[in-house]
Amino acid sequence: MTTDSAQTATQRAVRTYHEARFRGDVTTAAAQIGEGFSFRSPFITSDSPTGHLDGLDGLLGIVTGVELISELYGDTEATLVYDVHTAPAIGITQHTAEHFRLRDGRITSIALLFDSAPWQAIMSAVGPTPDEAATKPDPEPATTAVKRPGLPERHSIT
Amino acid sequence: MTTDSAQTATQRAVRTYHEARFRGDVTTAAAQIGEGFSFRSPFITSDSPTGHLDGLDGLLGIVTGVELISELYGDTEATLVYDVHTAPAIGITQHTAEHFRLRDGRITSIALLFDSAPWQAIMSAVGPTPDEAATKPDPEPATTAVKRPGLPERHSIT
Repeated sequence: MTTDSAQTATQRAVRTYHEARFRGDVTTAAAQIGEGFSFRSPFITSDSPTGHLDGLDGLLGIVTGVELISELYGDTEATLVYDVHTAPAIGITQHTAEHFRLRDGRITSIALLFDSAPWQAIMSAVGPTPDEAATKPDPEPATTAVKRPGLPERHSIT
Repeated sequence: MTTDSAQTATQRAVRTYHEARFRGDVTTAAAQIGEGFSFRSPFITSDSPTGHLDGLDGLLGIVTGVELISELYGDTEATLVYDVHTAPAIGITQHTAEHFRLRDGRITSIALLFDSAPWQAIMSAVGPTPDEAATKPDPEPATTAVKRPGLPERHSIT
């Protein structure tokens, strides 16, 4: 069953989170997170309310714009589709989808999807030691990593 | 403005397409495609109604299951989130999001999102010639490729 009020609450929490995240307002973003939260992206797996936001400043340092393409809301879930544009030195347009689950108007899980291959290439070029670089790519490069601090590395090359 | 009937038409076309695609029924999948269609994924860019389905048999040969996680429908768009499970020899669980736009109950665009890095690793290991492998990864490995026939390569290693 779908109700307008539940969808409105979903939309409010997700939009508030999304906008806060991309202006670097961790406090407001974290205020939308509920108990038992989990986050997963190609680079980060985290169960803490703000663990996935640890590298946010680094990310925002290279982001030049966020273009919202789609937002769809249900009673207890939502999906955003957006493009993240980065500085010319990076040159990546990151096509992104983000699936949210919510309970009582708070976000309880986020699955963030994008193609990490362009980032892997940049990180291989500038980030790791030669030994680490020699072992990349591996079959599951980062999906099992916990809070891999990749973003400051990326930021450092701007 | 949102109408139940438009959402129902959206849902019918997208669900029909999705189910047909994963049972290999190209005819039924293509029947949901409208004029001016475009498709984009990490590996394929195509403007023809069935160009993105050319490697479907190869894909299905390694897929062991499709787990639908979310489906959200609007009047003229929809988003599916699902996991594609592959054979043990591949060992990839492909977290996938698919954004559809529709007009008059037909699909006019699909943006398919997943992390191509695990696939890049497999393709680098078994697919390309040594010269090609030496130049990978590049900053934008496949987003500009048109109908890159990667799937049969993947199928051949099962």
